[in-house]
Amino acid sequence: MIDELIDRVYADVAFRLSRPVVELEASGRHLHLSRADADQLLGPGVPLTPVHDLSQPGQYTCAERIRVIGPKGEFPSLVVVGPERAQSQIELSLTDAKVLGVTAPVRLSGDLAKTPGVTLVGPAGRVDLTSGVMIAQRHIHMDPAYASLHGIRDRQVVSVRVWGDRGMTFHNVIVRLSPDFATYMHIDYDEANACGFRAGMLGTVII
Amino acid sequence: MIDELIDRVYADVAFRLSRPVVELEASGRHLHLSRADADQLLGPGVPLTPVHDLSQPGQYTCAERIRVIGPKGEFPSLVVVGPERAQSQIELSLTDAKVLGVTAPVRLSGDLAKTPGVTLVGPAGRVDLTSGVMIAQRHIHMDPAYASLHGIRDRQVVSVRVWGDRGMTFHNVIVRLSPDFATYMHIDYDEANACGFRAGMLGTVII
Repeated sequence: MIDELIDRVYADVAFRLSRPVVELEASGRHLHLSRADADQLLGPGVPLTPVHDLSQPGQYTCAERIRVIGPKGEFPSLVVVGPERAQSQIELSLTDAKVLGVTAPVRLSGDLAKTPGVTLVGPAGRVDLTSGVMIAQRHIHMDPAYASLHGIRDRQVVSVRVWGDRGMTFHNVIVRLSPDFATYMHIDYDEANACGFRAGMLGTVII
Repeated sequence: MIDELIDRVYADVAFRLSRPVVELEASGRHLHLSRADADQLLGPGVPLTPVHDLSQPGQYTCAERIRVIGPKGEFPSLVVVGPERAQSQIELSLTDAKVLGVTAPVRLSGDLAKTPGVTLVGPAGRVDLTSGVMIAQRHIHMDPAYASLHGIRDRQVVSVRVWGDRGMTFHNVIVRLSPDFATYMHIDYDEANACGFRAGMLGTVII
């Protein structure tokens, strides 16, 4: 009976001390296409060609490459991430945005109001976007079961600490919950370089 | 503007709580030359030409530009920071190092053992360095009077928190004390982009 109580106390302490842990992934620059823009760039009805599954179920890189032209510079062959989205979206780091010469805000995916545009050129034609360029706000995709274990709500803002030479704590990290998500934190390459990112790096979530 | 106000309020609160506050500066890629290498690159005895004083007393950018060539890429005209140093040193961000194609370690200034080399080309000649390329470890130059006010010792490792959209806490920040120093924290452009750096940004030192 005492042994059982001791076990339960240890289990409870372990639970209280166990902080959620997330694996980090660094997202390179890429773009998502609307079906209408894909029609213009690739040809009417031409489907995207999945090449490599990403960590988020149903998301994949495509064989298609798009030339992205800004006022100051360009990326000659930016990778497309599928499937199609409601609106085309170009996700850059601040370093990338400077290369193109656009002033892109830090945004959550899909929140494209008042973002700058850019010109896209594909094998079948071109599109002059009036918006769509953004810097992805650091975020965590989280499985709701894992979140509920730690009392984390959808859209909760947390901090995440990583260790190493360039150890840092990311603040203002928004957690998104969906049964379709695998649990990963996404940062861009400026953040990855700043924190000494290595593949498989883990961060501790501080609530 | 709101970010700036938040910075100022936090800086004020930090001051009232008597935590040390440092202004951040982002260091772009640059190089320091030894006199021997300057002789090769610029001509024997040709002096560096000061153009712009930096925040650290006695340090200045120079009119001279040096071509820096790595195995994968180059910077055609890298700025020289004077005066001459005991050994030539090329300070890059991780992003820059990838452009050149060198694997540069994170180091304190002057600690150049086992760093990679690179080729330098100036108006009078070239130098094939066998070492000297590094990524500057985030650090604080601090006036000893300010440090003693807060009980900070030379080479103490602290954390520094900055606010804003991309707010973060830098850990493993080394403090260097010298009566020749003005109190500033130096980060590179990966770190600057990752934390939403703006000129005049303040950070709170967490001891």
